[in-house]
Amino acid sequence: MHPRTGLPVVGMVGAGQLARMTHQAAIALGQSLRILAAHPDDGAALVAADVLIGEHTDLAALRKLAAGAEVVTFDHEHVPPEHLRALVAEGVTVHPGPDALIHAQDKQVMREKLAALAAPMPRWAPVASVDDVIRFGVPAVAKATRGGYDGRGVWMVDDPAQVQELLDAGTPLIVEERVPLVRELAAVVARSPFGQVAAWPVVETVQRDGINVEVIAPAPGLSEERAIEAQELAIRLAAELGVVGVLAVELFETADGILVNELAMRPHNSAHWTIEGSRTSQFEQHLRAVLDYPLGATGLTAPYVVMANLLGGDVTPPTPGMAAPSGAALRADASGDDGEHHHKPPAEMTLDERIHHMMAAEPGVKVHLYGKELRPGRKVGHVTALGDDLEDVLRRARRAVHWLREGEDS
Amino acid sequence: MHPRTGLPVVGMVGAGQLARMTHQAAIALGQSLRILAAHPDDGAALVAADVLIGEHTDLAALRKLAAGAEVVTFDHEHVPPEHLRALVAEGVTVHPGPDALIHAQDKQVMREKLAALAAPMPRWAPVASVDDVIRFGVPAVAKATRGGYDGRGVWMVDDPAQVQELLDAGTPLIVEERVPLVRELAAVVARSPFGQVAAWPVVETVQRDGINVEVIAPAPGLSEERAIEAQELAIRLAAELGVVGVLAVELFETADGILVNELAMRPHNSAHWTIEGSRTSQFEQHLRAVLDYPLGATGLTAPYVVMANLLGGDVTPPTPGMAAPSGAALRADASGDDGEHHHKPPAEMTLDERIHHMMAAEPGVKVHLYGKELRPGRKVGHVTALGDDLEDVLRRARRAVHWLREGEDS
Repeated sequence: MHPRTGLPVVGMVGAGQLARMTHQAAIALGQSLRILAAHPDDGAALVAADVLIGEHTDLAALRKLAAGAEVVTFDHEHVPPEHLRALVAEGVTVHPGPDALIHAQDKQVMREKLAALAAPMPRWAPVASVDDVIRFGVPAVAKATRGGYDGRGVWMVDDPAQVQELLDAGTPLIVEERVPLVRELAAVVARSPFGQVAAWPVVETVQRDGINVEVIAPAPGLSEERAIEAQELAIRLAAELGVVGVLAVELFETADGILVNELAMRPHNSAHWTIEGSRTSQFEQHLRAVLDYPLGATGLTAPYVVMANLLGGDVTPPTPGMAAPSGAALRADASGDDGEHHHKPPAEMTLDERIHHMMAAEPGVKVHLYGKELRPGRKVGHVTALGDDLEDVLRRARRAVHWLREGEDS
Repeated sequence: MHPRTGLPVVGMVGAGQLARMTHQAAIALGQSLRILAAHPDDGAALVAADVLIGEHTDLAALRKLAAGAEVVTFDHEHVPPEHLRALVAEGVTVHPGPDALIHAQDKQVMREKLAALAAPMPRWAPVASVDDVIRFGVPAVAKATRGGYDGRGVWMVDDPAQVQELLDAGTPLIVEERVPLVRELAAVVARSPFGQVAAWPVVETVQRDGINVEVIAPAPGLSEERAIEAQELAIRLAAELGVVGVLAVELFETADGILVNELAMRPHNSAHWTIEGSRTSQFEQHLRAVLDYPLGATGLTAPYVVMANLLGGDVTPPTPGMAAPSGAALRADASGDDGEHHHKPPAEMTLDERIHHMMAAEPGVKVHLYGKELRPGRKVGHVTALGDDLEDVLRRARRAVHWLREGEDS
C-alpha cells in the first residue's frame, strides 16, 4: 500500500506505451504506477513518478519492483519465466502468473495447450529440422516460438531449405499453415483472480507488413453468432489458462470460422480504442483485474470507434484496398478542403506543427503520443475517432494520421 | 521543447488535483507536465515525473519552473501578480497573463471590470468601514477580495458591526447583495492566444456549505435562450479580459436572469464532468489553449452527465431537497438491493475496501481519486456517471459517492 494514500501499488515490468497509458488510468484510481524501465527515456518513465531503472531479465531489479507493491504485472511478455517463479515462491503476487504467461511467451507451448483444449487454430507443427518442414508442406509460415512481435520472428517459407539458416542460428521454430483469411479479428477480455470476466466487443484489426495499422470496433458486419463464439472462446481461454488481467486473443476469420492466431496477456494494441470508445478502458480494466477490483462496464460509447496507429516516418501510405474492412465499401481517400494552409514543405514540419494541423482539421479526433522518437515503422502514437457513421469515422481517423505522419493533406 | 520528444513543455504552478488531472491529459499529447509543488506529497507530485519543489510565492522557484518551458500556467490563482509581471518582463509566456488573472485573484478588481463591461452581476460595494456596510444595507454577503475559495472568505452579514472584526484583521472586503437564487450555473469556455474560443454546455452546480457537491450537464430545464446568453457572456468575458486557457464563469440564476458570481481562470470543478462527458476534457483543452493548439470538440458524449464530488469524512450526507436540481423531481435515496454483503462495520472499512464495493455496485461509474488524505470537507476525489436518463444518472453518481464515503449502502 502507498504510505500516503493507503491505496495499492501496482508494479509494471516495462516502460513502453502500454505502461504509459496504464499510468494514466492508475492516476484516476488514486494510484501511481511503479514502473521498471530499461532506460529513463522510455515512454512511461518520462511521465511517471515512481520509476526504477533496470532490466526485465534482472531478478534483483524485479525484486526491487515487487518490494512494497501489491502486485507485479507486465507491459510486455519478455520476463524470464524462472524469474517469475522465483518471485512467486518468495510470496510476490504476479498477474498474470508464470503458468498463464508462458502461453503468451512461447508459441509452441501455446499451440500445444490450445490443442489440448480443442480450440480452433491453424494446422501447425514443431520444427527441429528441415525434414519437419518438408513433412508439414509448403507454403507455410515459420514462427520463432519466443520473442517475436509486430511481424518480427515470422517468415514466409516457400522452400523448406529456408529454415536451415534459422535453425543454425538456434531459433526455436514452429510452422503453421498459411490460412486463407477473410480478415483478422481480436477478442479482448479481462479476468480477475475472483474469476470475474468482462469482454469488449470483438474488433477487426487491419495489418500492414505484419503491423497493426487500424482497429475497428465493433468488427463491421460480423454476425452475432460469430461474435459470441469469439468472445466465448476468449473467456474460456482466460479461465482455462488462469489469466489474470487483460487477455487479447488475435483471431483469423476464414470462410469456415475463426482460428486463434496469437495470445497477449497485457493491454494490447487491438484495444487502445477502449480509452475513449468504451466505458472502461483496457488500461483501467487491467489494473482492476490484477488488483481483484470488480471489473468495469465494457459497453461502447459510440456506434463505431476506429483506432489508427501512428507509425514513424518512411512508412508507405495506406493501400486503400488492403486497409478497407470487409464489411463496407470504404475510401481511404484523405483529401478534402478544410481551409488549412501551410507554407512549409511537409518534410520540414516538426511533429508539433503537424499536431497543430491535425487538431485544426479534426477537432473531434483524440491523439495519444507515446513520447518516442520517430523511427521508420515504429508505433509512436495512435488516434481515435468515433461516431455514428463508419465511413466518416474511418475517414477522420485516417486523415488525422495522415496529417500527423505526412504533414500535409495530400 | 522537451529534448527527447521535441514537444512543448507546460509548467504548472501548484500540484493539486487540477495539476494531477492536467498531467493525465498532457501524457496523451506526448508531453509530461512540469509541476511546481509546495510539497512532494501533493496530489500531482505523487504521479508526475517532472516536479520542482517550491512555493508559488517564491519568484526564484517560478523562474526555475519557467526555464525551458514553453508556457507557465496555473493549478490555482494565488501567485502574486508582481511575480507574474516579472516573469513576463523576462520573456516568459504566462497564460493566463497577469492582467487577465487579476480578475480571478481580486474580487473588487473583477467587480469593477464587470461593471465597466456592463455584465450582469449582484449589486455590490467596496468596504472600508462599517459605515459602508450600513449604507449598502443588510442582510448582505461580505467577501474577502483575495484568497477565498470553497466557501472560505465568505461571511453572511446580518449586522454591519460584524465586519469590524474582519477589517481589524486587515481583510480587504467587498459586500454583495444576497441574491434570491433559483440555482447556480456555470459557463465554462477555453480561449487560445489566437482568439479561438470553445464553450461547453452550461451546467448546473449544486453547492452545500459553500462547496460544490454535484454538477449536472447540461443544466436540466435551462432554456436555450438562457444557455446561449450564458455562453455568450462567458465568451465575451474571456475575450474582454484577455483570458488564455479555461475560464469558468460561475453564475447565479434568478427569476430575472443570470448574474456573474465568480470567475476562475484554470480548470475548474464545474467541468470535471468533461473527462468522460465531453469529447475534449477541460484539462486537454486548457493545455491546447495555453499552447495555442487548435481547440477540441466540446460536444457531450451522453445526453446527461453528472459529476459528484467525494468529500473527506465527517461530512453530513446529502439533504435530498437541497441537492435535488430544480429541473426534475429527484430522489437522493441511495438505497437498493445490489446483492452486496459486507461484514465490517462501515467505519472500519479502508478507502480501498470502499472502492471494491463502489465498483461492484456501479460498474459504469468512473472514479477519480486525488491522492489526498481524507480530511473533513476536503475534496478527495470525484465520480462521473452518464446516460440517457437523468434520474438514473444522478442516482448512480450519488450511490457511488455514498459507497466511497460512507462504506455502506444505507
